Amino acid sequence: MNANKIPDIIIGRLPIYLRALQRLSERGTLTTSSQELGEIIGISAAQIRKDISQFGEFGKQGTGYSIPFLIERLRDILKVDRVWEVVIVGMGDIGHALARYNGFANRGFHISMVFDNDPAKIGQKVGEYEILDTATLPERLKQNKIKIAMLTVPAASAQEMTDQLVKAGVKAILNYAPISLNVPRGVHVQYTDPVTHLQRMTYYLD
Amino acid sequence: MNANKIPDIIIGRLPIYLRALQRLSERGTLTTSSQELGEIIGISAAQIRKDISQFGEFGKQGTGYSIPFLIERLRDILKVDRVWEVVIVGMGDIGHALARYNGFANRGFHISMVFDNDPAKIGQKVGEYEILDTATLPERLKQNKIKIAMLTVPAASAQEMTDQLVKAGVKAILNYAPISLNVPRGVHVQYTDPVTHLQRMTYYLD
Repeated sequence: MNANKIPDIIIGRLPIYLRALQRLSERGTLTTSSQELGEIIGISAAQIRKDISQFGEFGKQGTGYSIPFLIERLRDILKVDRVWEVVIVGMGDIGHALARYNGFANRGFHISMVFDNDPAKIGQKVGEYEILDTATLPERLKQNKIKIAMLTVPAASAQEMTDQLVKAGVKAILNYAPISLNVPRGVHVQYTDPVTHLQRMTYYLD
Repeated sequence: MNANKIPDIIIGRLPIYLRALQRLSERGTLTTSSQELGEIIGISAAQIRKDISQFGEFGKQGTGYSIPFLIERLRDILKVDRVWEVVIVGMGDIGHALARYNGFANRGFHISMVFDNDPAKIGQKVGEYEILDTATLPERLKQNKIKIAMLTVPAASAQEMTDQLVKAGVKAILNYAPISLNVPRGVHVQYTDPVTHLQRMTYYLD
């Protein structure tokens, strides 16, 4: 399998499949079908079959997919069969929410450090984390070979922080600021902006 | 134009285009090209031209797109040329962050009410909002004809709250809980889960 040939649009759906499969697995379910998966996540059964078939023969006619096997395969493909260390930059409400979020475990990620540049926040504790000074970020990230950051700073400082993260070796940024970031080739950005999600739905409303 | 014929995948990209165009507009820029837009948002110029051409003739050979005109058209298509009233259900960290988020204005949305079921939170103020009792949600939503909710409750109560929202007439839910929701046909759900965003990027990391 040449991983580079899988279209990004399909890669984008795999985490959704994985989440649904892990939920089924937690309930003790061992097999599923593209129909069942499709109903859970709102994607057509045909699309799911087509996506999954990109990675080999999984389903057996009549018996469906083995959930543990498909989970293992998707975790391998998405490289979340390991644990990635992640930092949070910006300890406002969203930074706090992420630092306390218990949905990272078993899904491939561990929050390793949290940063802010506000002297009133530096040194404070959020859960198990002590808020570190953003001024120490480049050194700490390089030392710990951190590749992934969640960026939860105000829009006005998002690009400047991004430049620092990139310089420190970060290759993947989940951006909560409502602006588009400029990054060099080879650095990946995902945006999470409530408004774009909402706008995607209003199209369908009367 | 038959709006129903536009594939959902294209609809999903329009809010991204709109956000980039509004940023350019704020800086005083009046025209842009598919190349420039593509560089800002990381989508190919060809894809952008193809998507935008679905809605009619916008660009002029050599002069590019008129930003104010394209913004107006996208706002119209996405139905955000009006203001939608939105409620927040669940006033934990994420609920607080959303209630204080200043990115809704001028993008088609206004937070109208916020809810929680915790007696210690009910009646407290978050910014300009008083936290209302979830028990009063069905009545208040019906009365105010609310169609859109942001769901920021724990995973364990997300489905139950969803059922209540649907019964109260909500047609679009932005779900922050890391579970898939069951909703009837005609109700739209968007998921925002940091882990699926991160997993989409780790695929590309070494």
